Amino acid sequence: MKITVWNEFRHELENPDVKDIYPNGIHSKIKEFLNEEDSFDIQTATLDEPEHGLTDEVLKETDVLIWWGHKAHEEVADEIVEKVKARVLDGMGLIVLHSAHFSKIFKQLMGTTCDLKWREAAEKERLWVVDPSHPITKGIGEYIELQEEEMYGEHFDIPVPDELIFISWFKGGEVFRSGATFKRGKGKVFYFRPGHETYPTYHNEEVQRVIKNGVKWAAPEETPISKYGNAKPLEEL
Amino acid sequence: MKITVWNEFRHELENPDVKDIYPNGIHSKIKEFLNEEDSFDIQTATLDEPEHGLTDEVLKETDVLIWWGHKAHEEVADEIVEKVKARVLDGMGLIVLHSAHFSKIFKQLMGTTCDLKWREAAEKERLWVVDPSHPITKGIGEYIELQEEEMYGEHFDIPVPDELIFISWFKGGEVFRSGATFKRGKGKVFYFRPGHETYPTYHNEEVQRVIKNGVKWAAPEETPISKYGNAKPLEEL
Amino acid sequence: MKITVWNEFRHELENPDVKDIYPNGIHSKIKEFLNEEDSFDIQTATLDEPEHGLTDEVLKETDVLIWWGHKAHEEVADEIVEKVKARVLDGMGLIVLHSAHFSKIFKQLMGTTCDLKWREAAEKERLWVVDPSHPITKGIGEYIELQEEEMYGEHFDIPVPDELIFISWFKGGEVFRSGATFKRGKGKVFYFRPGHETYPTYHNEEVQRVIKNGVKWAAPEETPISKYGNAKPLEEL
Amino acid sequence: MKITVWNEFRHELENPDVKDIYPNGIHSKIKEFLNEEDSFDIQTATLDEPEHGLTDEVLKETDVLIWWGHKAHEEVADEIVEKVKARVLDGMGLIVLHSAHFSKIFKQLMGTTCDLKWREAAEKERLWVVDPSHPITKGIGEYIELQEEEMYGEHFDIPVPDELIFISWFKGGEVFRSGATFKRGKGKVFYFRPGHETYPTYHNEEVQRVIKNGVKWAAPEETPISKYGNAKPLEEL
Repeated sequence: MKITVWNEFRHELENPDVKDIYPNGIHSKIKEFLNEEDSFDIQTATLDEPEHGLTDEVLKETDVLIWWGHKAHEEVADEIVEKVKARVLDGMGLIVLHSAHFSKIFKQLMGTTCDLKWREAAEKERLWVVDPSHPITKGIGEYIELQEEEMYGEHFDIPVPDELIFISWFKGGEVFRSGATFKRGKGKVFYFRPGHETYPTYHNEEVQRVIKNGVKWAAPEETPISKYGNAKPLEEL
Repeated sequence: MKITVWNEFRHELENPDVKDIYPNGIHSKIKEFLNEEDSFDIQTATLDEPEHGLTDEVLKETDVLIWWGHKAHEEVADEIVEKVKARVLDGMGLIVLHSAHFSKIFKQLMGTTCDLKWREAAEKERLWVVDPSHPITKGIGEYIELQEEEMYGEHFDIPVPDELIFISWFKGGEVFRSGATFKRGKGKVFYFRPGHETYPTYHNEEVQRVIKNGVKWAAPEETPISKYGNAKPLEEL
Repeated sequence: MKITVWNEFRHELENPDVKDIYPNGIHSKIKEFLNEEDSFDIQTATLDEPEHGLTDEVLKETDVLIWWGHKAHEEVADEIVEKVKARVLDGMGLIVLHSAHFSKIFKQLMGTTCDLKWREAAEKERLWVVDPSHPITKGIGEYIELQEEEMYGEHFDIPVPDELIFISWFKGGEVFRSGATFKRGKGKVFYFRPGHETYPTYHNEEVQRVIKNGVKWAAPEETPISKYGNAKPLEEL
Repeated sequence: MKITVWNEFRHELENPDVKDIYPNGIHSKIKEFLNEEDSFDIQTATLDEPEHGLTDEVLKETDVLIWWGHKAHEEVADEIVEKVKARVLDGMGLIVLHSAHFSKIFKQLMGTTCDLKWREAAEKERLWVVDPSHPITKGIGEYIELQEEEMYGEHFDIPVPDELIFISWFKGGEVFRSGATFKRGKGKVFYFRPGHETYPTYHNEEVQRVIKNGVKWAAPEETPISKYGNAKPLEEL
């Protein structure tokens, strides 16, 4: 399975606190723990590479794309977003992390503002499993507890998810639909909330477990190829 | 309840067969039967009016917008589409008819290609009710039968609907999810398949009944106004 | 619209604290605030009446049934439960309140254990609206805050709801899917969490608003009557 | 993966036409093609065995149970049904085939009548894929065509499926939701329509492919174990 981890990769270069947590960038950390899975073949791509590292060839060969972005969503070229969207509709899996709720690709696939409440206060988050039959929850407990995270609160302006897997509790009094899946075309999309750059969230083993599970869940399979357009009758008219 | 019926209004001017069926345009026929409902205050708008008839004032005052388009989707200005989308997310209901599956507004709200199979062969369609608890089915029987319609066949490339109300059977061997609802932001969207311009579909009383029901279902109510952005904690941190 | 409010009516007779809050029973309080709606015609029924107050005639004439039970679920006769279930499948609305998650009727309609976590600690609950397009949220704000309630926590063992409207935050660290709808046959079911007998929850105006909205949403309409069994072909074979 | 194929096994003994198609019973045919999968360890069980072949030990060790029944649903002991249901809620997958829509186990898990229209007229069925991202559709085309099948028609009185995968077209004019999934507790349920005993449906390779895919999809994984009942607070109250 070929996985591409895409990262904006700006905070890590500009903010020493973030660099301390992710010295080689969030993408490198994600690549590192995904590497524990033998079946995963992983590469990375970042905003400031040519074509944001997402050339036609890279996209064509990617089974699952992971996306982290925050402060530079607008710098992602519309042309690249269109190509990523086309690949998702054609079957490529997409894992959307944390602040990528506001990425161009996620907003275009959802059709809504994807807006939410937020607060940076290093507060406790507890992600409760509400669908304990889902393969994305494999290997974790009833909840994941993170001592320090950014708060995201409802209302989260997304379409009704196809599946709701996690609901977060925040110390400050809010809740959030933190793990949700959406089918778009032949592609499977998994939004997973945690991962603010100033906290060591991607060092958490349960968070890592969920992302690994999400990649496996989102991987394309040899499902039917739909034919569109003018069609001859299958029965006599 | 203020309703705006939007129509491309080109086929009726260019094709005598269509003009015979809808002498004043599809929008005028829809307005005519909606007028049977006392609580409805209806106006129309068409592509070739300034701003396509959808000025800021018109949109602001519209509770439910009905959309019929086919051959000129690309002529609808992106700026107007953005305004319509913003109003839907803000609560305006949207009824999307037939070939408007390919309209800019529907594709943007869905995030998919909205592609499908089609065939113009004046064949029989039977729309079966699969959700007989839904208010949109009020006053009709187990199915609606149309002697002559264009065929639309699966796969229909839309997100999984929030509610599936009708499934069509076509003489030529296909099926189609013909009545489906989607929530986007605070707005409710109802896609209803029948209505090819060369057949007298909008003269059918059961089709009229469904569109009336759809308008009532999609109308906005005084539901909560969500606040987005930075939020102070509700509990002590 | 004919509404029947069913209550177990035991705590109020046995526990002075409960009697203080609901001197004439929870059912009487619910009837009282529903009476503010002109279109509602309300009666009550309780466990210790003959046939639990749910005779064939009462059930036949009831459009929406509200159900509160807690400690005596097992005393509800199976025969009555079967009749209630048949009426729901035939179109009667059902509002299931709080501890009625464990009622026979709810468990039979869900097909699952309907189990959950709970704690009686007079703790704060905040019910967040996650579907601000839903008519059940009409007239309330972004959340409802209750200073003292029993905690119910995930995992709540129900089928995936057709619609998820409220998610609760609890002071003690849990979350809960507190407002959820389910279609069963022609009937609409709304589960609404708050309402422990030792707290004055049904005196809260926003809780009252939600229950009124739920009744309106669940009311049956003249939707299609399905025919089942052997069917002659509609087309030539 | 341990699979148990349960069959009523009456038609095959009583009707020579059925015996011609399935000389050793439908269960043996299903076991035969499932055996093509190396990871499957398959046993069978039938109605007239002691405890219907579903002892505590058999159920405990079964990962996925396949169920075919038709004329003797009422002979299945309630006690066994309760045990099967408990195992499904605990994670065992369940594949419900054709006329088992009326089995006690399916009706109890659904909470509805599971009624439908039917007709035995050896007519053509075409099952269209409406979710081409779903793993259950792996390896098949846009539709499966069966030259002779019993018709099942809407309205099918089931809860709204979690996922709708196939919609059938029938020559006689009906449609049907023929492939649908439902989560109940930790268990995954897949209903798949085709398989009338007098037609060679389970000899069809695409039907076999779907059942194999269904088994893989329904298999339990090491997902979280929910704790229910009284719970201590996780935060200070």
